[in-house]
Amino acid sequence: MSAMLTRDDALDRDRADPLARWRDEFVIADPSLVYLDGNSLGMTPKRTIQRLQSVLADEWATDLIRSWDRWLDMPQRVGDRLAPMIGVGPGEVSVHDSTTINLYQLIDAACALRPDRSVIAVSGGDFPTDRYVVGGIAAARRMEVRDGFDRLDDVAVVVRSVVDYRTAELADVPGETARTTSAGALVVWDLSHAAGVLPVDLGGSGAQLAVGCTYKYLNGGPGSPAFSYVASALQASLPQPIWGWFAQSDQFEMGPTFRPHADIRRVLLGTPSILALAAADEGIGLSAVAGIEAIADKARALTEFGLALCDQLHLRSSTPRDAARRGGHVAVHHRDAKQLVARLAAGNVVTDYRDPDIVRFGCSPLTTRFSDVFDGIAALGALL
Amino acid sequence: MSAMLTRDDALDRDRADPLARWRDEFVIADPSLVYLDGNSLGMTPKRTIQRLQSVLADEWATDLIRSWDRWLDMPQRVGDRLAPMIGVGPGEVSVHDSTTINLYQLIDAACALRPDRSVIAVSGGDFPTDRYVVGGIAAARRMEVRDGFDRLDDVAVVVRSVVDYRTAELADVPGETARTTSAGALVVWDLSHAAGVLPVDLGGSGAQLAVGCTYKYLNGGPGSPAFSYVASALQASLPQPIWGWFAQSDQFEMGPTFRPHADIRRVLLGTPSILALAAADEGIGLSAVAGIEAIADKARALTEFGLALCDQLHLRSSTPRDAARRGGHVAVHHRDAKQLVARLAAGNVVTDYRDPDIVRFGCSPLTTRFSDVFDGIAALGALL
Repeated sequence: MSAMLTRDDALDRDRADPLARWRDEFVIADPSLVYLDGNSLGMTPKRTIQRLQSVLADEWATDLIRSWDRWLDMPQRVGDRLAPMIGVGPGEVSVHDSTTINLYQLIDAACALRPDRSVIAVSGGDFPTDRYVVGGIAAARRMEVRDGFDRLDDVAVVVRSVVDYRTAELADVPGETARTTSAGALVVWDLSHAAGVLPVDLGGSGAQLAVGCTYKYLNGGPGSPAFSYVASALQASLPQPIWGWFAQSDQFEMGPTFRPHADIRRVLLGTPSILALAAADEGIGLSAVAGIEAIADKARALTEFGLALCDQLHLRSSTPRDAARRGGHVAVHHRDAKQLVARLAAGNVVTDYRDPDIVRFGCSPLTTRFSDVFDGIAALGALL
Repeated sequence: MSAMLTRDDALDRDRADPLARWRDEFVIADPSLVYLDGNSLGMTPKRTIQRLQSVLADEWATDLIRSWDRWLDMPQRVGDRLAPMIGVGPGEVSVHDSTTINLYQLIDAACALRPDRSVIAVSGGDFPTDRYVVGGIAAARRMEVRDGFDRLDDVAVVVRSVVDYRTAELADVPGETARTTSAGALVVWDLSHAAGVLPVDLGGSGAQLAVGCTYKYLNGGPGSPAFSYVASALQASLPQPIWGWFAQSDQFEMGPTFRPHADIRRVLLGTPSILALAAADEGIGLSAVAGIEAIADKARALTEFGLALCDQLHLRSSTPRDAARRGGHVAVHHRDAKQLVARLAAGNVVTDYRDPDIVRFGCSPLTTRFSDVFDGIAALGALL
């Protein structure tokens, strides 16, 4: 950057932002709050409050048990709204349970599909629940956990995040899927830090299994259900560790033998929370209507602006400079990061600390303004 | 019964009912509806609507990610409210995930604790998800599934419902726990059709593992989270199939190694839905305040009245006549049960069909009136 960036530059960008109006769809309880943690918990869509009111009063309270006629296929209906944003077709995604459980189910299934292989590969720097779930499955199946993806010839399953939760580095999904597949392994992609901030072309990449989170960029609410993607071709034969009644093909006949659906309903387990699903539906719906390409454009512009501000203030970032290689946040490294995040919060700037030295500035395109990015990074600069 | 029971008898009982006022705590959307399916989905507490509004507007929207300071221990806090109703202490129950997942986790853990045994025993008449989950674990662990509990000498784990979902027969929890334990097996009790309608003395029975549902008699909402009970003595060493980050002792340090909590938090998996937990909390809270002994007294009186009406109308029931041996519903058998349930529903009487020939009249003491039982059973009588 040649000229110094100022707050007016941020405000200019906000005025020119084609997605600016989407912020009005969310509750702004404290206009002075600089919220840069929408990648941990997205803000509250106004529609979600109305929707929950309606589910409680018009569905649960009014129709009671009879509401299951309209609730039963919700995991798939909400999944179908999400599917285009991750490059897959209708009937390939279900929204249910949690990222942890969905990872467990799909990684265990993938291991069962590669019984002649003995290794699960995961990055030692990946998100904890991914690593822990892999560790548990490896212990139960007496498999080996390998840190990293250099050698794949004896690998059954690769577990990888599309966007690194610390640096925001974006993996090469087509390239790594192809390399893994040609080595005879299956890959389970984790889209938790990617879904809703950039388009992921799972289908075009030949990816067959993925999970992700809906409470970050998809604004589904605290602990909203996660999603599972299983490519159509793999659905009918997907092995499962947990045999639950929501996967049963004749669910309400309650027959003696477990005969799971041959479609995406096969990934379902127990009774899903309808309140949580309704909230996820509203959050996902906003991103679907706003358009994932427009959202990704703004994410690139916000993070570009943030990185330029970091340079200007001599802050050190590990987030890739190449916009095509990064997700929706900017990671700033400082040895006092933990204390700095607390001091920022005391000044009404909410960011996130990540071990060991990262201040994470989350840019959630439907709610984050360029002026938020300016104010947040300037506040950090002022503390140093 | 000597004298014929009339609708006036039902109204007399309603007037004398010490729990009658609790129905006012629930939304009555259609006063003409005869709802006898609160054992499938409980009605909507008015407080739940207020609570959800508050969680959405005052917690999520206002404090955003910072709300996790108050949300993080919700599974345990809600569990502690439930604990006295099932005869266990604080710190022994967590409300999380679904009955299916909680069954999977505890049955698999119990199998790991009995590695020298090769059989899982479950009744062929138990609820489907219990049987299916057992089948999946047995397949993965190469164990045998045995139908019934006569022979236990080679059994690792017994999986049993406290109340039979078809007949409402109540198991002998202390006796069967003692018999199973003395045979060297562990029992996982399923309280789904018992919790919130009668007191269960798990602690006094020496039971160490149990799960249950909160969307039936506990009025927690559609698909509300289930619960897990693990006796204190077993918590620190409980093996787990699914290693999730909410069980991790240093959760937010995100360290390399899975080191689960030594307390009840060990059963947690992924991020719980806070909306679903808040609704469960309100439902459970109503039962806790109304008092499980008073609730059980009314359940016995409602089912006693229902059985007397069945006799009067020459309807055949398999529900035990001994009030000490039954839960909160009355099962009527008829070869046309499925059609009869549909015809009752057409007349605004909601009951439940259970394969192959059962019309199930659920009596949920906080919302069901004696006049509902009268109207429901009389309507069935009128159809025959």
